[in-house]
Amino acid sequence: MSIVFSPSLRCQLPVLLALLQGIFVAIFIMFVTYEDHSIRSPFHNLTEEKEDHLTAIFPSFKDVHLMLFVGLGLMLSFLKLYSFGGIAFNFLIANFAIQWSLIVQGFFYHYKEGKISLRLENVLDAEFAAVTALISAGAVMGRTSPVQLLLFSALEIPLFVVNDWLVNKYFHVIDIGGTIAIHIFSCYFGLGVAQILYQPELRKTHPKEATNSNSDFLSFLGTIFLWIFWPTFNSVLAKTEAARLHAIINTFFALSSGTITTFALSSLIDRRGRISLVYLQNASLAGGVAIGIIADLISPGGAFAVGCLAALSCILGYQYLSPFLARKIKMQDQCGIHNLHGIPGIIGTLSSIVVILIGPTNTYSTSLHEMLNDSNLGIQSPVLEVFGNQNTWTAKDQALGQAAAFGVTFGVSLLGGYITGLLLRLPCFVHPSKDYFFDDQLYFQIPED
Amino acid sequence: MSIVFSPSLRCQLPVLLALLQGIFVAIFIMFVTYEDHSIRSPFHNLTEEKEDHLTAIFPSFKDVHLMLFVGLGLMLSFLKLYSFGGIAFNFLIANFAIQWSLIVQGFFYHYKEGKISLRLENVLDAEFAAVTALISAGAVMGRTSPVQLLLFSALEIPLFVVNDWLVNKYFHVIDIGGTIAIHIFSCYFGLGVAQILYQPELRKTHPKEATNSNSDFLSFLGTIFLWIFWPTFNSVLAKTEAARLHAIINTFFALSSGTITTFALSSLIDRRGRISLVYLQNASLAGGVAIGIIADLISPGGAFAVGCLAALSCILGYQYLSPFLARKIKMQDQCGIHNLHGIPGIIGTLSSIVVILIGPTNTYSTSLHEMLNDSNLGIQSPVLEVFGNQNTWTAKDQALGQAAAFGVTFGVSLLGGYITGLLLRLPCFVHPSKDYFFDDQLYFQIPED
Amino acid sequence: MSIVFSPSLRCQLPVLLALLQGIFVAIFIMFVTYEDHSIRSPFHNLTEEKEDHLTAIFPSFKDVHLMLFVGLGLMLSFLKLYSFGGIAFNFLIANFAIQWSLIVQGFFYHYKEGKISLRLENVLDAEFAAVTALISAGAVMGRTSPVQLLLFSALEIPLFVVNDWLVNKYFHVIDIGGTIAIHIFSCYFGLGVAQILYQPELRKTHPKEATNSNSDFLSFLGTIFLWIFWPTFNSVLAKTEAARLHAIINTFFALSSGTITTFALSSLIDRRGRISLVYLQNASLAGGVAIGIIADLISPGGAFAVGCLAALSCILGYQYLSPFLARKIKMQDQCGIHNLHGIPGIIGTLSSIVVILIGPTNTYSTSLHEMLNDSNLGIQSPVLEVFGNQNTWTAKDQALGQAAAFGVTFGVSLLGGYITGLLLRLPCFVHPSKDYFFDDQLYFQIPED
Repeated sequence: MSIVFSPSLRCQLPVLLALLQGIFVAIFIMFVTYEDHSIRSPFHNLTEEKEDHLTAIFPSFKDVHLMLFVGLGLMLSFLKLYSFGGIAFNFLIANFAIQWSLIVQGFFYHYKEGKISLRLENVLDAEFAAVTALISAGAVMGRTSPVQLLLFSALEIPLFVVNDWLVNKYFHVIDIGGTIAIHIFSCYFGLGVAQILYQPELRKTHPKEATNSNSDFLSFLGTIFLWIFWPTFNSVLAKTEAARLHAIINTFFALSSGTITTFALSSLIDRRGRISLVYLQNASLAGGVAIGIIADLISPGGAFAVGCLAALSCILGYQYLSPFLARKIKMQDQCGIHNLHGIPGIIGTLSSIVVILIGPTNTYSTSLHEMLNDSNLGIQSPVLEVFGNQNTWTAKDQALGQAAAFGVTFGVSLLGGYITGLLLRLPCFVHPSKDYFFDDQLYFQIPED
Repeated sequence: MSIVFSPSLRCQLPVLLALLQGIFVAIFIMFVTYEDHSIRSPFHNLTEEKEDHLTAIFPSFKDVHLMLFVGLGLMLSFLKLYSFGGIAFNFLIANFAIQWSLIVQGFFYHYKEGKISLRLENVLDAEFAAVTALISAGAVMGRTSPVQLLLFSALEIPLFVVNDWLVNKYFHVIDIGGTIAIHIFSCYFGLGVAQILYQPELRKTHPKEATNSNSDFLSFLGTIFLWIFWPTFNSVLAKTEAARLHAIINTFFALSSGTITTFALSSLIDRRGRISLVYLQNASLAGGVAIGIIADLISPGGAFAVGCLAALSCILGYQYLSPFLARKIKMQDQCGIHNLHGIPGIIGTLSSIVVILIGPTNTYSTSLHEMLNDSNLGIQSPVLEVFGNQNTWTAKDQALGQAAAFGVTFGVSLLGGYITGLLLRLPCFVHPSKDYFFDDQLYFQIPED
Repeated sequence: MSIVFSPSLRCQLPVLLALLQGIFVAIFIMFVTYEDHSIRSPFHNLTEEKEDHLTAIFPSFKDVHLMLFVGLGLMLSFLKLYSFGGIAFNFLIANFAIQWSLIVQGFFYHYKEGKISLRLENVLDAEFAAVTALISAGAVMGRTSPVQLLLFSALEIPLFVVNDWLVNKYFHVIDIGGTIAIHIFSCYFGLGVAQILYQPELRKTHPKEATNSNSDFLSFLGTIFLWIFWPTFNSVLAKTEAARLHAIINTFFALSSGTITTFALSSLIDRRGRISLVYLQNASLAGGVAIGIIADLISPGGAFAVGCLAALSCILGYQYLSPFLARKIKMQDQCGIHNLHGIPGIIGTLSSIVVILIGPTNTYSTSLHEMLNDSNLGIQSPVLEVFGNQNTWTAKDQALGQAAAFGVTFGVSLLGGYITGLLLRLPCFVHPSKDYFFDDQLYFQIPED
């Protein structure tokens, strides 16, 4: 195993990490500050506001951490020889991406008089950006080095921030859970990279790309953690308590019906009626992805239906679409992110259009109408003025906005992925040799069992 | 392994799941709705109420999920060849049971003008019902198919709802943590089923009914998750903050003293003083079961004592009573639910009687007296009128009510279990052949290790 | 394996546990009571206060449990033959230590008119004391019996309480996260015991002192749980919401930069650039230890810098200092607590001195100045009167106080550790024979895999 990297991991990883972390520390010291509480007054009111603020945000902050580090970390550890690669690189990239997002979003949104003022919400926003990087990386897991993954996220984060701003400002997208901004974006960015990093050797299964009972079990445990805290993820950006309540319950319902659908369809597909662990680990979550975009707007029954549909399409994606795409357009999607994030994301987008168009006839339309008639709408959104102003803005216009937001996100992310992929292929960056794909031994001092 | 099922799993499981989920989706679309917030006014007050509401309920909702899906899921994965059966069927049955309970409880309690109005508490109530199904299923784990388990819960949930209503309405039972309504009910329902599904082959240990270090370790980790969130479970229904505070601390104390008792007694029983993993996984939680019924009423010292007693009786149950019952009345209790839920439940019921009878002499009697003198008491509870009305209602009457609630629950659940067991034995339902008891390979596409 | 203990585990463990638990139950029954809510009035206000109280404290209570029982429990399970010893003895000692701390702190701080009045904060305080015992025990893990560990904590807890009181009352130490009171104390107490319990046989690696992939993986999962909830730990004692907010974010930042530093330095040290699992499991947390003392006072950039420095020094400690100390002063530190708690604790103490001295020039000085000019200062702190009174008290005086608190804690804990070690060496207490160090078989009924 003398030369498995060319160039050397030991040269590039520490230098890159030290350099990036050094720059970040310098930027934080120079630019980032807490709000100065002594300026505001009266003091007592501030305290009260802070208290409400913390009581509301801090639990969500921890829930998102449990999702990112425990849930996703465990879920990505499904390969028996690459379990540390799954959980530990997820941990590394998450930390890097959160810091980097804080800086990018800080300068983009919160830079004022030479300083970036920091609140706990900013950290939460940064974690939503980081999620995007972590999902995308799933497409090339095990066949890229941590050096490549760091560059990958370094490029993805700013593009995510720009696209997120774009779809909000220009299309006034309704998407509380980030179905378009996070799931669609991360999926097609990741697939773009994966297509450029195509490995002909992986057309047949790599000998090290295998699970065992224990790695599959722990991966499913990760799925369960994601499942439990997904309602937090889809509800944390809700602006009213009613919206938050609906988002929580609807997400739970979509996950629940999706889970039962997963068991049903998985058993149906197998010749002996057995459940597939891959489907269980992934399709159980498809409802959460799809419902995100309308978690605050849909009715309970609608949430159930969307969950069933999302899980159904996710499994059919794994079973029929993935093999087809791998053959036809050389798309090697290691973790199946297209099936868990892409397809359910499309289901969600379509559902949002349906709900918006038929919404006014049901009782949840209040919040939808409020959004549509939001007095700031005409001012905030230049493109919307093309379609009409705040008074004439209709559900149909909003439906078009949803579709446009999807289209733009799809294009931006795929193109971004292609460019990033080309950069990662440069021979100057350390990459694993084919024999050591999906192998922890390359990156970790693994004990001999 | 060509014919291990008769009839086929692949025919029954997908059809049954699709059918049930389809019916549930239809019911939710037709009958279930969120409260219409636009009706109530003034709007601002509603928002405030909602906020308090969510802040109070949502954390408990997540805690209960961690208990059900992670805690109980891991705990049930103690068999080395049936770990997926433990965690994944728990996941499936929990999802089914929660949806089904929402419907049953919805029509039973919340049906008005053709609609069931949904709040987050309703989901929490449904999860309490689901717990019952999950505990019961432990008695026949590994020797029943998921088809049988689904029918099992489909029958148990409505009976649970009726019994819960019965003991509250007619006996005005004091039981904040569900010691009688949940633990006693689920235990004897499960044992009733288990007795009917008696398997002579299981008199000696089945060759596949074995643990290994890893499965035992993860099962103990599940115990720890249950242990941590048990105070939430026992306190979530408290009506005053003082009651909630006492329920939290008392549950923690009972679990803690029960844990130390478990180490002590387990070491004493073994010839070489070693700790039994089975006792550790189960008896550590016995205090939480027993204290539930009086978690809001007992003193700190009393909680410690109840915890010790519960763990003691749980271990003695495993050591002496279970083998005896298996031999004498053919009771095959796979997970030992009688020792963890039945016996500590009896200890708890007896403790509640003691506390109620001697309660007025200690400082926590305020809440007890308030309950007893609740002005609605005479009206709510027809049977209580036999004993006396609100003015003459005494601690002794309440003690009798506790005993009656226990007796009724015991009878209803055991009888319900027998009937359910008879149904499950019908040859038309898929059931595993004896050689494939406790074997994931029958139900899951397990990787070859 | 006939005689591996002398004297017998079966004689001592149950007797000791039953005795201690019995005495504790008796003390709780006789002395501990809940606040009598009927005394206070008006009733309504009390309820409101209670509600805020529970909403604020209960989540922290659960977070700390997740850290203690899941996080630390898993982290300590890194040895393949001693995983139950890691997680289960942690569970036992934690329970014992919490109960014992409640009693010691109860009589020390809350004893009034023959009763100890109990609040949820008291339980939280007791858990902070218990943490100390659990960290210390890491130094002698696997080569001490549970009987020895119980005595160990029985002696450490009262000394911790006295030292904590000392550094607060006499040196008015600023230390929100317990860097000095918890980490420095537990480290040097544990090392004191370890030095006395020196085992010449352990100069070379014991054949059973080995990890495997699975135990290393689960241990890292424990690290992640600790990492996620560390912001709670460092912020729970904050008195204002601004302080709490800063403590949360700063702790997160220090952990994050420490994690990236860990990957960088670990890769740099290895000849092939691979990451060490030991460093990953430990140094990722070093930032949390170091930042504790100033988590509410430092700027975001400062938190990042402290995190880098702490992880750096932790890894250098493992790599160079530990082998040196083992050779020179016979310090056998099983879990490397000196590297994770001692060295980062020193970094933290030094950082606190720097921040206090240069603090007034930055915007967070408000809270620092408020602390320094706290009107009660002169009265509370006799020693401070030597240096000056509340009006003349300067940052320099406080810096000296920090140094003095460190020095006193170092001395008290090391001395306490030596004395405790001497006691534990007494032949009357059960101890494992050398061949059975790091072996679960001695203490648990382990299944044959």
